[in-house]
This record gives sequence, C-alpha cells and structure tokens, in this order.
Amino acid sequence: MVDWTAGSIKDDNSALDIKLIDLSTVHYLSGPIRILDEDGIPAKPGDLVAVEICNLGPLPGDEWGYTAIFDRENGGGFLTDHFPCASKAIWYFEGIYAYSPQIPGVRFPGLTHPGIIGTAPSMELLNIWNERERDVQTNGLQSYKLCEVLHSRPLANLPSPQGCHLGKIKRDTPEWERIAREAARTIPGRENGGNCDIKNLSRGSKIYLPVFVEGANLSTGDMHFSQGDGEVSFCGAIEMSGFLELKCEIIRGGMKEYLTPMGPTPLHVNPIFEIGPVEPRFSEWLVFEGISVDESGRQHFLDASVAYKRAVLNAIDYLSKFGYSKEQMYLLLSCCPCEGRISGIVDAPNAVATLAIPTAIFDQDIRPKTNKAPLGPRLVRKPDVFKCTYDGNLPITRNPSAT
Amino acid sequence: MVDWTAGSIKDDNSALDIKLIDLSTVHYLSGPIRILDEDGIPAKPGDLVAVEICNLGPLPGDEWGYTAIFDRENGGGFLTDHFPCASKAIWYFEGIYAYSPQIPGVRFPGLTHPGIIGTAPSMELLNIWNERERDVQTNGLQSYKLCEVLHSRPLANLPSPQGCHLGKIKRDTPEWERIAREAARTIPGRENGGNCDIKNLSRGSKIYLPVFVEGANLSTGDMHFSQGDGEVSFCGAIEMSGFLELKCEIIRGGMKEYLTPMGPTPLHVNPIFEIGPVEPRFSEWLVFEGISVDESGRQHFLDASVAYKRAVLNAIDYLSKFGYSKEQMYLLLSCCPCEGRISGIVDAPNAVATLAIPTAIFDQDIRPKTNKAPLGPRLVRKPDVFKCTYDGNLPITRNPSAT
Amino acid sequence: MVDWTAGSIKDDNSALDIKLIDLSTVHYLSGPIRILDEDGIPAKPGDLVAVEICNLGPLPGDEWGYTAIFDRENGGGFLTDHFPCASKAIWYFEGIYAYSPQIPGVRFPGLTHPGIIGTAPSMELLNIWNERERDVQTNGLQSYKLCEVLHSRPLANLPSPQGCHLGKIKRDTPEWERIAREAARTIPGRENGGNCDIKNLSRGSKIYLPVFVEGANLSTGDMHFSQGDGEVSFCGAIEMSGFLELKCEIIRGGMKEYLTPMGPTPLHVNPIFEIGPVEPRFSEWLVFEGISVDESGRQHFLDASVAYKRAVLNAIDYLSKFGYSKEQMYLLLSCCPCEGRISGIVDAPNAVATLAIPTAIFDQDIRPKTNKAPLGPRLVRKPDVFKCTYDGNLPITRNPSAT
Amino acid sequence: MVDWTAGSIKDDNSALDIKLIDLSTVHYLSGPIRILDEDGIPAKPGDLVAVEICNLGPLPGDEWGYTAIFDRENGGGFLTDHFPCASKAIWYFEGIYAYSPQIPGVRFPGLTHPGIIGTAPSMELLNIWNERERDVQTNGLQSYKLCEVLHSRPLANLPSPQGCHLGKIKRDTPEWERIAREAARTIPGRENGGNCDIKNLSRGSKIYLPVFVEGANLSTGDMHFSQGDGEVSFCGAIEMSGFLELKCEIIRGGMKEYLTPMGPTPLHVNPIFEIGPVEPRFSEWLVFEGISVDESGRQHFLDASVAYKRAVLNAIDYLSKFGYSKEQMYLLLSCCPCEGRISGIVDAPNAVATLAIPTAIFDQDIRPKTNKAPLGPRLVRKPDVFKCTYDGNLPITRNPSAT
Repeated sequence: MVDWTAGSIKDDNSALDIKLIDLSTVHYLSGPIRILDEDGIPAKPGDLVAVEICNLGPLPGDEWGYTAIFDRENGGGFLTDHFPCASKAIWYFEGIYAYSPQIPGVRFPGLTHPGIIGTAPSMELLNIWNERERDVQTNGLQSYKLCEVLHSRPLANLPSPQGCHLGKIKRDTPEWERIAREAARTIPGRENGGNCDIKNLSRGSKIYLPVFVEGANLSTGDMHFSQGDGEVSFCGAIEMSGFLELKCEIIRGGMKEYLTPMGPTPLHVNPIFEIGPVEPRFSEWLVFEGISVDESGRQHFLDASVAYKRAVLNAIDYLSKFGYSKEQMYLLLSCCPCEGRISGIVDAPNAVATLAIPTAIFDQDIRPKTNKAPLGPRLVRKPDVFKCTYDGNLPITRNPSAT
Repeated sequence: MVDWTAGSIKDDNSALDIKLIDLSTVHYLSGPIRILDEDGIPAKPGDLVAVEICNLGPLPGDEWGYTAIFDRENGGGFLTDHFPCASKAIWYFEGIYAYSPQIPGVRFPGLTHPGIIGTAPSMELLNIWNERERDVQTNGLQSYKLCEVLHSRPLANLPSPQGCHLGKIKRDTPEWERIAREAARTIPGRENGGNCDIKNLSRGSKIYLPVFVEGANLSTGDMHFSQGDGEVSFCGAIEMSGFLELKCEIIRGGMKEYLTPMGPTPLHVNPIFEIGPVEPRFSEWLVFEGISVDESGRQHFLDASVAYKRAVLNAIDYLSKFGYSKEQMYLLLSCCPCEGRISGIVDAPNAVATLAIPTAIFDQDIRPKTNKAPLGPRLVRKPDVFKCTYDGNLPITRNPSAT
Repeated sequence: MVDWTAGSIKDDNSALDIKLIDLSTVHYLSGPIRILDEDGIPAKPGDLVAVEICNLGPLPGDEWGYTAIFDRENGGGFLTDHFPCASKAIWYFEGIYAYSPQIPGVRFPGLTHPGIIGTAPSMELLNIWNERERDVQTNGLQSYKLCEVLHSRPLANLPSPQGCHLGKIKRDTPEWERIAREAARTIPGRENGGNCDIKNLSRGSKIYLPVFVEGANLSTGDMHFSQGDGEVSFCGAIEMSGFLELKCEIIRGGMKEYLTPMGPTPLHVNPIFEIGPVEPRFSEWLVFEGISVDESGRQHFLDASVAYKRAVLNAIDYLSKFGYSKEQMYLLLSCCPCEGRISGIVDAPNAVATLAIPTAIFDQDIRPKTNKAPLGPRLVRKPDVFKCTYDGNLPITRNPSAT
Repeated sequence: MVDWTAGSIKDDNSALDIKLIDLSTVHYLSGPIRILDEDGIPAKPGDLVAVEICNLGPLPGDEWGYTAIFDRENGGGFLTDHFPCASKAIWYFEGIYAYSPQIPGVRFPGLTHPGIIGTAPSMELLNIWNERERDVQTNGLQSYKLCEVLHSRPLANLPSPQGCHLGKIKRDTPEWERIAREAARTIPGRENGGNCDIKNLSRGSKIYLPVFVEGANLSTGDMHFSQGDGEVSFCGAIEMSGFLELKCEIIRGGMKEYLTPMGPTPLHVNPIFEIGPVEPRFSEWLVFEGISVDESGRQHFLDASVAYKRAVLNAIDYLSKFGYSKEQMYLLLSCCPCEGRISGIVDAPNAVATLAIPTAIFDQDIRPKTNKAPLGPRLVRKPDVFKCTYDGNLPITRNPSAT
C-alpha cells in the first residue's frame, strides 16, 4: 500500500511539500476487497466481518516515514492556532525502532497499524453521512457547539469532485461527476470503521466490522509505523507505505447479534475491536493533565476536547525545557506511543484529560528532579541545527538556551 | 480517611440512600497538611511539592465499597439521560480483588488511588475559579457550547453555605458565612490538582503539585478501590474509606522550572503526575468505539465528550447481551479498570473515542464468536435476582431472557 | 510475623551479627493454622487447601530489611567459594520501593512475598524426608553427583535438638528430645511447599497446598520484601518482619483430582501456584548467560546449577564495572527483581542458564555502549565509603578505580 | 534460512521422519558473515559485535513449523526416559499466532527468535572445547556428576566427519577430513553464543558477541517461531524456516571493557543479551514446582536440572487431566511461551525450579477449581483422534476417559 498521500511527501529536509500539499486527494487506499466465505458466498448486509491483522510493516527497502504539521491555511491540526506553520520530521526505521534526525535523542518502538480500515457504506448510510455533515458545515458556529480555537479548520469534508479517486470509473464523465458528488470523503471515522486511528491495532488484533453492502467491500490504508493517541498534528502518525496481511471471517447475522444501533436507524452502529497481547511494554510514564478551561481562561462545560488540548499543550511546554523546540515536541507527541485518556468526565464544569508519555523513549531523564535525590545528570548537548525548514525558509533549531 | 460521603451510603440492599443523598456536603477530605522541608521551612508559593504515594488501602475491618448511579434530579452522571434512576452496587474486597453480589460473574484487581489530592488555592486563584465558573452557570446554554444531552446536570458547583465544611470555623457566624460564599467546591479538578480522578495514581506514583499558599496546605480524600477512566456514573469508582501514606518533598522554585502557565496569569498551570511500575497486567482487551455523532444522529464537531459517551453506550449495550442489565454494566464500566482513550481528535468532523475493557474480569468469554472457531461455551446461568433496588422499589434483575 | 531470624540481625553498620549468627535456630515461623471449612469441618489428608494471598507488607513502623552474605564457615551461599566473608546491606522501604545506603544508585519496587508457606507433613512423609536427606549427608560426595564447588556447605539440614523450636512442648523433656530428633528442618522446600522462595507469590496469588494431616496445619513466615530468582546469597532476599492476610478454601479430594504423585508413594507430590496479575512492569532487561562449564574450565553434563552459577558470576563481574564492588552486586542480585531462567537443558553437554536484570533499577545506563550511539553519560560518582563491615573489620568500599 | 534440519521434516501426519532423522547433519546454518565497520575495517579479536535483531519471521508462503519428540535411541530429549517414542506436532501460523491440529484447544502468540547465533571460535578456543567435551564423553559417569536419568543420551557431540557441512571445502579430501575432525558441532551453546536458545531474543533485542577471529564470522539459524524455556523435548521449539534482518555494530576492544573471563584463559567468556520491550503480555500464570528429588525418590544435592525435570513432569501430568495425552503436553511445554525459573538454589539439599504457564493459551480454564466458586464450565469435548503417528504406527489419541 502507498502512504496516505501516495508519495507526495519526500524524504528530504524541506517542509515545502507539506506546505503545498493538495489535501483534496487523500486518502489513497487499497481495496475494495470483496469478502467471501469458504463456500464462495459473499458477506451480506447484517453480517459482521472479523478481520484479523496477521502481519504488517513497512515495504522492504522503503523503511522510512514522516510526521508533519500542516499549515493553518492548508489542513491545520489540533493545535493549529499555536503552530500555524508547516513542519516535517523524517523517521528512519531500524526493525521495531524509529528515530528522526529532526528530533534527536528520541528512539522508540513502533506499534504499527493501519490508520484506516472499513467497509463500504450502503446508499442509505451514505445519505445519512452527507446530510449530517453538510448540516455542520452549513450552520457551523451558529447552531453547533464548536470550539472556537478549532474553528479555523474545515468543519467537515464533504463529497467533492476535486481530487476524487473513483477506481475504474472514467474521469469527468457524468457518472464520475455524479458519484464524486455523493461519495463520502475518508477523513473522519464513521459507522463503517474508516479512519479510526486506534494506535493499538497491530499484529494479532481483530476488527469486527459491520457489513452494509454485499461483499462488505473492505478498504484499508493510511499505514502508520507509530501513532500517539489523538494523532494531534493531523499528519501526526509516522506515515509510511507498507504491507498488510489480513485474515477475514464472516459472522453471519453478526450485526444483530453483537451490535446495538445507537441512533434513529439500524445503521447507527460502530465496529468492535479486539486488541492482541503484543505491544511494547513501558515501565514508567510521565502524565500531563488538562482541564476544560481554554488558554484564554474561559471555562467550558465538561468538554474533553478542550481538556485534551490543554494536556497536550502542557506536555509540549514541559518537554521543550529539555533542549527541544515546541514544534519538535508537537511532532513527537503526535507519533510516539503516548496515551491520551479521558480521566474525569462527570465533575462539572471540568473535564479532566491526561496525556501519558513513556519516559524510556528519551535518552535523558525527563522527570522533575527533587533537590535531594537527583537521578542522574541532565544530558547536556550542543544545540543541533536541524535541516528541516518550515514556512518557506526558517530552520527549526533546538533552543540554544536550553540545557 | 472517610469515604467521600462520610458514611452516608450503607452496605445494604437498597438504593434509597443514593436517591436521597445530600450532595451539597461532599467531598469529605483529610487535611489541610502543612508541608515543611527538613529544616522546618514551609513550602512557598512558586514551589512544587512532590507527593509520592507510599501505601494505601481500605481500612482494616472495613473492606467494602460502593458504586452508584445518582438519580437524574440529584446529581446524575455522564449517561443520566439514559439512566435516570438511582442504583447501587456493593463491592467486597478480597486482597487486591473486588466482587459484587449485584454484578455476579465479575471479579477484578483494583488499582487503588485517591480521587482527590490537591493544594490550597491562593485568594487570587480562587477568584479566577469563581468568576469563570459563575460565568458558565449564568450564561449556560446561550453562549457556551454545551452538549444538550448533558445539560440536565448542574453546570457548575459554585460556593455555597449549604452543606459547607469549614474545619474549625464556627458555623453560622459572619466569618463562616463569608468564607462559605467564596470557598471553592471540590467537585471539579482544577489548577491545584483536586478531583482529577486519575485511576493509575496508585502505589509508587508521584504527584508534582504547584504551591499557591505558604505550607501548600495539601488535602486529599475520595479514596477509590478502583475506577474506570472517566468515572462515568459520577459516583462511579468503588468508593471507600481508607488510609493513605504519603512522602512529600519540596522542589524550591519548581513551578517556574517545570510548569508553564497556560492562560492569562502565572497561576494557570496544571500538576504533573508520574505513574509507577506496578499495576495489574491484562493480556487482552475488547475495545468499543464512539464517534461524535449523538444518539439523535446529530453531528458534532470534533467533540470528544460526545464520542466518549457513544463509546460507553456501545460497550454497555454489547455487554448487556451476556446476561446483564444495562444498569449493571453502567455501574461496572464506571469502576472496573477500563481505559478511555481519545483515539482521533483531528479528522473533522468526527472525534473518535474508545473504551477498552480487559476481558479477564469476566468469568465468561465476552468476545464475539466466529461461527467456525468457538472459544468455549458461553456461560449459562440461571437468572439471579439482585437485592439492590432503585427508584424506590424495583429490583435490578439479570435479564432472564439472556443466555 | 518476625523475620526468619526473629530479630537477630540489626539495622546497623556492622556485619558481625551475620558472621556470628546461630543458624540452627531458623526459620522462625507463624503457625500452625488449623484450616476448617464453613461448617467447621477440618481439611483432611487428600484435600488441597487453596491459600490466596490477600494482603501483606512490612510491619508499620518497622519498614526496613536486610540482605546478607553468610561466612563460608557459617552457612555460606551459592557463591561461597567466591565470597567467603560475611557482609550485610540494610534496605529502607518507601512504599513499594527499597533503597540501601550500602548499594547507592539503586532503587527498585519490591514484589513482597512469604519465602515459606506450607502444610505439616504426616509421619510417613516425615520419614521419607529424613531417610533421603540422611542418605545424601552420609554418602555425600562418594555416591552422589555433588558439585564440588558447592560442597563446603552442609549437604543437608537434618533434624537436631540444637536450636529447635517446638511450640508448647516443654523443652528438654524426653518428648521434646524425641520430637526434635525427627522433626524436619525448614531449610529446603519439599512436597508440602515450605521454603519454595518463589519471588512472584505476592498479592492476588494463590497456592494450592496438599494436605497430609487433619487440619492441614499451615505454617508460614520468612517474609521477603523482594527477592531475585535463586536467592543466591542464601540470606538473599530483603528479609523483614511483616504481616500477611490469607484466605483459605478447602478443595475436598483435591490431591487426587489435581496432583500426580511423582515417586514411589502417593505422597510424592508438589504444590501448584497461581500468579496474579499485579507485579512491577519492566521494559528492558540485560541478560547474562552461563553454560555448564565451571570456573576451572571443566565440562559438566547438562548441569543447570553450574550454568546458573556462571550466569550469576558473569552478571556480578559486569555490573562491578559501573562503580560497585563485587560483594555489593552479589547482594543486589540476591534481592532485586531479577529473573533466573533455564534457557536450554537439552543440548549436550551444555546447559544454558540466564539471569535477566531490569535495567531501570539503576540510576545510570548499564548497557554496553556502541562507539557511535552513546545513550547518555555514564554516571561519575565520587567513590563512597560504605559503613557496613565484613569479616570483622574491613569496610566495603565502592571500588575507587571504577568509572 | 532453512530450518535446522534443512527440510528433513515434513508437514504431514506421520512421525516417521522424526524417528529416522539423521541428526549428524544438524544444524544447517546461514553464514559465516564477515563484519566490517563503516570504513571497511573488519571486527578483530577482542572486539564485541552488537547484533540487533531488526526483523524476522517465517518465509512468506511457508508459514508452518513443527515440534517433535525424538526417539530415545536417536537423540532423545530432557524427558526421554518418560517419552521414549518419536512424536510430532505440526503448527500453522496465523500472523503472530500458532495452532496445531495435533494439540487442539491451544493457540498462542509466538516470540520468534533464532535459536543459534554466534561468532566463529579461534583455533585456541576450539581446542579448549574439544578437549573438555572429549573428557566428559570419555570419562562419563565415572568421574562426572551425571544425572543417571539423563545418561541414555549422548554425553557430548564431538567433531566427526559424519554428516559434516564445510561450505566450499571439497568433500572427502584430506583437508575436508582434517577440518571435520576438529570443527565443533553446533549442538551446545558455548563461549561464542551459538545454540543458546534464549526464547526472548525477538525483534528489538541486541546480542553482544565476543570476536575471536578477524571479521567475527557470524553464523545464525535454527529459527524458532516460539519456544518454552529449556526447549525440553530437544526438537522442542516450533522449528521453521525463516528470514532474519540484523544490524551489526562493532565495539572496539569491547571484550576487555565489558566481559570478564571466567576460567583459565581470557577466552572463557559469555555473550551478553539485551531484551527489547516487545513481547506478548500475559496476565495470569499457573506455576508448577519441582524439587531436586528424582522420580525414584532419591535426593540430589541442589541440582537444578533434576528440580526442573520434576517441575516439567508435574506440569505435564496436571495438564493431561484436561483432555490431553502426556505426549501432547510434553510437545506443548517445549514450544509454548512458558517460563522455566530457578527459584531456590541455596536451601540444601533441595533446589527448587518452577515452570510457569500462561493460562490464556488454552481455550478452557485450566486452573484448579474450588468447590464454591467455579469459574466456568470445564470444556467437554468429544475425544479427538489425532492423525500424527509415532513409533511406527500408534496414533496419539486424546485420552477418551478425560473430560
């Protein structure tokens, strides 16, 4: 499988490709795969397909990936109001480990997974999606509870002929035009799975996907060498090309047996995931907290998105004290194996979200030091000058005043 | 330490105490503790106190706790629109394990922790709190992005003389009245820590708390034998009385060195937490997903609270297929060691949240079964009749039609 | 429970108590406990008792322990030919963690457990023990395959009136004398459990013990704050006084249902253990290997004891390169959470044993460094002079030439 | 890399190939690989090579392996006196999982690793090996401490022209004959690493190997999909063909810096291993114990090999109560991710060894049941008839009398 941009982003030291990327063309996926049982009978609406991830990894000879911050005017990300400029880190893989010349002093094992895996929607489900997403885009801030700090980003990603991929349908014919205007974009995760970005879906995991059309028409892609919970910088995983081996089984009538619709139609369901026993063990975690009070000091009511934003910002600020720029840490927290948790969601008016970072990914001790029991010398490093540029021409530098 | 209600909830088979509880009196805490260094010099504003949790547990001879759903008209919870009636489960402890007669077939190790630990605010910080929380309560739905499905609950918990505890201050004097009208309620977590409900803060964890007043004036309480991320039913942990042994160190000037203000004043900070290496290992997890489309089918914009609500509802519905009522599962997911994650927060318009449940806490295999490879017989149990009542007089029964 | 020496070893800076200890008096145990079912009917021969460890820990106010090397002439240990002199390290506990002034730069979480837990033998089983152990002591090197490097230690610990504890039996009466001459010493683990020293038997573990006499007569003691596999220095765990809460259930007829005799009589059985889900997680381990070739270069045939001895010696030598004396590391590997494994036992003539040490217990990076990718500065510490003395008067010093 | 027998064992339902295999030809390895640094300068005696395992797995399209018991007269195994007949189980791989038609009801994730990895010995080291191993074979039972229960197996595997592989050396020339008579056989692990069978050497692990000849001449092979500690049945791992990606670095002078000779020459060293953070997590373990009393009731002195044999026998007997034959369980304990520990090695006269088995690999609850709290129904299965034959013509059957 190609990476989500089909090779638009290069292994070089410029973020210009990130700044100028045409996001209307993503995601490039593999599929659809028609799923049959051993007797050749296809999956049918109402079935579940149990998809086990048998093996996956980067393509041999192509063992690298990238994490990027999009420009605020072209995609943005969770913290786009704080990090408006394009930036990019290249990661190289050594077996299970990744390291980046742009973020020295960090090396971690990846929990490789597909960012996207899903079945095809039926026409009825497609209409539901298009209607509700058009509504949020149309009425936007007025009638919806939008977080202002996020509102410079597109409110939805509606069907559009621009940049559309339609397989064997001949481009610019009336049929192509019709389909392009109703086919869902793959940016958000939905009832069919899709871009769920669950970072633990690695070897041995199993995904129970609802079937909406005959054959299920499974598509997958957006391979991630590693991702942090939330994928905060949007192009936030270590994006890569890769391979994926799946084993599919059909559970006849499984939707009714295992899923419960949660909405006005029987189609309002969500897939179920089973996480396997293999993932990197970490011993110690440093945890940053955020509450649902935004950076202006304004109180939000039990808003986990605002709380998580604060937790991420707190973590970035803290880590930047150890010789890094904030851009570097924003990139790192998007792709390293950090965990984003909803810790408290009931204690009005504050939601509490936490971001837990395994301390072992750093080559220095990043924990606060008590005055009496230092746990080792802080690493003193001459400030590196990174080659990656952003916003056209500014080099990212490790803050020279940091120890 | 007493439990958060100071013994209001009884080890019996009626939920009447839950239904009628006066929530204006919670939380009952221990403290404030004045923190000095080895030379007797107190912690000062701008310092951090590093609080290590050395030991903790239930009080000997009092090894039980409770999880409850509050009535919608008296406290409610995350899913109060789905579960409006009071309910209660009693948990008994056998060493590290808890089990409940109200939720048979479940037994799990607890990750015991204090729900609340925090320092005292300065007057300046108190004013910030009171102002911003009053604002949300006053302007409420009009100017804030409130999730309607949550709005039947109180929007904030403002200072009030009703049910107020003020230590040695003589009740109903002018001084008592003045303080009661400005002292913050302990319901939400805030800049000082407080009710952060981080379920992993068990033995060996360390909490770095900012100091706002001389001596730090540490308070703690709200002991939890176990809690799930989010503590969704509000009285959602296994609430208990207990003991707590702490070791405190002062990091002089630590606020400036380690914390970064995130807001209009230097007081807009959050504590940092360090999770220790000891917690229950689980091998396999079943993961439920939610997206930010609510139960009416309405689209919300990257709203992690809505997505998490959907994930919890999906989990409850799924688990209720295994011989449980939905109330039982709502209670269970509030207090068992389940993890609530923000998986995707950038793919407009859908936030994706997940709830991961360790399969080992059940005495039956709760995974979906493929038709060809059954992993063992589903447990067939005669329907139990539980003694716990809710809404006055209805018994909770395990659904007799379930297998 | 008192520690295994009933307080003979002091929290001081001299190893004289270790050098002069009268080992004929150990172990001091608690019990016997008569086990009844809910109807008051005692456990009977042929039953199993399932003993769950509910809670345990040091005694409040007495949070310290010790690890020691016995003098070669008085007990010795696994490496007594390499470490002939008495030595002692004191450990202090901070919640789950232990640290020692004698071994600075090390701090680790303990996996607290009873070293000894067992049921009483029947007369028939006692006779089997006494006969086979007398045989090894009598015939010793001639007819048995004894490892010469171990043979300066006692070959067995036979019944003897010297230092004997017999509960309420009046000392120095004929009855006392008779019993003392046939009652088994508690040094080795046997069919009844006893001194099995399984380091993972902590909270939530369950032990299935065979019952040989009515009531089972359970005894326990020898509390360990932490132990490494093998407990190599003999007084090798962090020995402490402590408390232990057990829950016992009787499995009627369980010996026949679950255990299989492995020897000439139905009594030749061994207990079964169930390890719970709670123990310290470690991320990275450094592993030392030994093969069954002894220090003189002599080949032994698939001898796992020799191989493990080599693995431990290799680890001690390696770690002593990081600023420690070999005695310090021998003490440490006896008590820290290291794992001793039988990796290969079939590839004639070499058994392969391994010793795995979690790297996180040190405050410096103890891994070998490749020339190109240093992982951080090696900790340079001024050589400490330790106060603990051994062999009468020599101070243990950290090797000044190290680092 | 081919499997250790170069394809001699077939994916079929007969154990005849196992019974008749010519073991003089194993192991088939890949190499030697000459290791250079970035400037093209080879590794030199006295250096260490740090070999990181980047990736490994079965060969695409060849995803199967086997575990076997050798006939007592042809190789045998750790329990050859109990299991004298040849037997074989075929395992099929589904991603990280393996399952076997011969051992139904079991499925587990593999921790894939090379059984053999080592550098070439110098002539001096080769002479040391040949001398000491010849000594044990010649003098055998008389002067060595051989465990009689093991002595029907070959005492050593000395150089021999029979079945010898010598790369490009022309077969049956005088040079070939000379080399074949002095070149070490690869059965045992030795100072150079070799057949160390450390089951955790999977992705992300690093091996520090001593260099004895210029270029190091690294060889590797004997790929295992999974192995239990001890690899007890000798052909005990899940043996397979596979691929292996390594990254090598040279640590100049590393032998002196990191290894300590343990014997009469500087060559008496052992490699060091670093285990990575990725391996299957298991939550609960059932642990079987053995003491150094053999099956005849005879006492051995602190003999960990005898103790481990007892532990394995106890586990086999216990597990066979759940519907399996003992041969099936002997095969399973050779290859599943079980841990063999040396728990006590100092309490004369009994060594205590333990074998810990993760309970999750079975599709039924294998724990002992207390009478009052059953954890679920025991799986009742109609007795399967397995197709694999042993000793010429006897089918292995699951014991029909077992439940």
